[in-house]
Amino acid sequence: MVHHQERRVLAAELPRHAGETVEISGWVHRIRELKSVIFVIIRDRSGLAQVVITPPYAAPPEESVVRISGRVISNPQAPGGVELGEPEIAVLSPATQPPPFDLYRPKLTATLPTILDHAPVSLRHPRLRATHAIAAAAVGGFRGVLDSQGFTEIHTPKIVGSATESGANVFRLDWFGRPAYLAQSPQFFKQMMVGVFERVYETGPVFRAEPHDTARHLAQYTSLDAEFGFIDDHQDVMIMVRQVIAGMVAAVARCRSEVELLDIALPDVPAEIPQLHFADAMAWLGKDHDGQTVDLAPADERALGEWAVRQHGSDFLFVTGYPMAKRPFYTHPEPVRPEYSNSFDLLFRGLELITGGQRLHRHQDYLEALAARGEPTEPYEGYLATFAAGMPPHGGFALGLERFVARMIGADNVRLATLFPRDLHRLAP
Amino acid sequence: MVHHQERRVLAAELPRHAGETVEISGWVHRIRELKSVIFVIIRDRSGLAQVVITPPYAAPPEESVVRISGRVISNPQAPGGVELGEPEIAVLSPATQPPPFDLYRPKLTATLPTILDHAPVSLRHPRLRATHAIAAAAVGGFRGVLDSQGFTEIHTPKIVGSATESGANVFRLDWFGRPAYLAQSPQFFKQMMVGVFERVYETGPVFRAEPHDTARHLAQYTSLDAEFGFIDDHQDVMIMVRQVIAGMVAAVARCRSEVELLDIALPDVPAEIPQLHFADAMAWLGKDHDGQTVDLAPADERALGEWAVRQHGSDFLFVTGYPMAKRPFYTHPEPVRPEYSNSFDLLFRGLELITGGQRLHRHQDYLEALAARGEPTEPYEGYLATFAAGMPPHGGFALGLERFVARMIGADNVRLATLFPRDLHRLAP
Repeated sequence: MVHHQERRVLAAELPRHAGETVEISGWVHRIRELKSVIFVIIRDRSGLAQVVITPPYAAPPEESVVRISGRVISNPQAPGGVELGEPEIAVLSPATQPPPFDLYRPKLTATLPTILDHAPVSLRHPRLRATHAIAAAAVGGFRGVLDSQGFTEIHTPKIVGSATESGANVFRLDWFGRPAYLAQSPQFFKQMMVGVFERVYETGPVFRAEPHDTARHLAQYTSLDAEFGFIDDHQDVMIMVRQVIAGMVAAVARCRSEVELLDIALPDVPAEIPQLHFADAMAWLGKDHDGQTVDLAPADERALGEWAVRQHGSDFLFVTGYPMAKRPFYTHPEPVRPEYSNSFDLLFRGLELITGGQRLHRHQDYLEALAARGEPTEPYEGYLATFAAGMPPHGGFALGLERFVARMIGADNVRLATLFPRDLHRLAP
Repeated sequence: MVHHQERRVLAAELPRHAGETVEISGWVHRIRELKSVIFVIIRDRSGLAQVVITPPYAAPPEESVVRISGRVISNPQAPGGVELGEPEIAVLSPATQPPPFDLYRPKLTATLPTILDHAPVSLRHPRLRATHAIAAAAVGGFRGVLDSQGFTEIHTPKIVGSATESGANVFRLDWFGRPAYLAQSPQFFKQMMVGVFERVYETGPVFRAEPHDTARHLAQYTSLDAEFGFIDDHQDVMIMVRQVIAGMVAAVARCRSEVELLDIALPDVPAEIPQLHFADAMAWLGKDHDGQTVDLAPADERALGEWAVRQHGSDFLFVTGYPMAKRPFYTHPEPVRPEYSNSFDLLFRGLELITGGQRLHRHQDYLEALAARGEPTEPYEGYLATFAAGMPPHGGFALGLERFVARMIGADNVRLATLFPRDLHRLAP
């Protein structure tokens, strides 16, 4: 018996089969009834195909799944220049409820909560589908660059015994009767693994019990993390970031039909991304005359993003040297001005996309950094053992996938770049 | 200024630089003091290099991180046939505590708990490192096959609002004051996404609050999941599984030095993996005369694994048609004998490695399956909406990465194939 999946022709392949009788399968995307003829548009993973039915035959309701055999006939008006005539239609699975919105319209006209409440159906809309095809390509681009640079992929625990990294905004869970926490980042683990592989990356979920309901925060997001050793300082990390971003943008660019459908203006990634030290950014913004400001406000980031476009023609800008006061204890200070750090953020069109930097690498420096913050060493035992055993100068970065995608497609809410968002109010679907 | 990472030569590249003065970096893997000379073995991500020091100069303690410049000199006894002479050694980071075991010995001689307690250091042992290099390659092989088959990668929620899929062994967490649960599998989400992309995969963590302390269960493991539509039945899924396994084994085979170091006997993946129906397996085992047995015991799996080697020369065996009574409600029954299912397990050397099958696809069938089990439909609302909107016949499978790796390297405990295992007792490091 021949399996149907071997016999099946995809919508995008139909033009190659003009004149033949073929079998296609997919969803009934749209039904247009004219006086003497019905046009049925079939959607499959490759695109759309037009089928022509003559009454009294009828089409099953939209979103029903069908298998259709018919003759491929030229029709310059149809998608791909061909349509399927003389069809025999088998309904594999009828749609039993009409979707809450028309999936065939160019844009989904529902509100964001309605779109998210009906995610299993709304994601079928070609624009939403394209968004997530682009996300998949971007992750592939991230891995492709790092694989070619000798990095090794790792899978680290998402459940940890102490809420060490930031303390705030962690989800607490019941671990066989003991308290445990969801990991806010793979930071400690990826550093430990630099001691094993020198160069590592992870693409996985991280969890923030973010109590604010904003357009740019999620309680679970996909973090693309990399960390590597034998660097001079954070500038080596920034060189790697630039390669990774270029690879991700190139991977997105290969999704031609999705880029076209979403009308994405792909950014150029300059050979050298411009950079500005935090102190210089403050001076340019006319802020921080008292030296007390330790971070950029969202409005500052937007202003700097505009400056980068005007001054350098770049959608990307590195801001370097953030004050140590705002950075975590493992951050490496600037050697000459130790109130600043060997760290950076990458702004993409005025929004923070990546945070990274050089980390401390000597055991003694860790002991002193924790002591200076009045923190005990016990909760960090395994982490500190890494440095006691010898660690190279190293650094890394983390990129929020959903932010990258949202910025790429110009979405004003990061939830539109997430399949099934989790936030303060949303636990389903 | 030239960055050191541009100037650096890796250990494996040294033979190409005979006669030159070069710079290497890495960990002091081993120090061997002879009468008139000290051999220092340096370990980096590519392998080992030998450096020759003449007293009174000394080497920093093992696991210290060094940068060494010196001349590359031929020495047939040294790794790669060359060694570094006339060295200048800079200590980038001293090891401040000796490792709890000798990392340079061919095998780690510590007990499993000691190895796991000191994971950040024990993972540096070349054999443990090789295990995880193979794991990374296997995941790359999984993705490579599915990317080439038109699958799209997805990232789904690990936090869910109801413990629907099995009920037992779920971790409960505090979600902004409400109860929520860690996902035991991406099953529902990957099915929903078949409605969007037809073919999807995910590589990510899953969580089982496994109350037993066994050698083959973990509380968090890495699940390699795939799901796709427009199949005839589970046999189409098994064809895909065979391709994926072949791709994973091929990817491991490309890790030549790791395969050699671990002395791995790579399995052949037959063009057609032998299969045996559950009913026939029971008959062969001389069991289930009353038709009440619904699953295979581990000893049964081992016996069947040996049979597959003897009878078919295959390390792999599909057992198909498990009784419906043991399978989840979304399982598709066998059309002719509905007490059996269109499902399968793949045994790898007598251990269950993959579970998969065809799922129900019609909305009405889901309503009936839930009613037959006396379950309400409310907790499944988003999931059921997928089928109300039309879904093709589909199926998929899940593979536990750690089990695959453990079986590949012949480890008797799956914890040895996990970077930082989480189980009933272990939450750190």
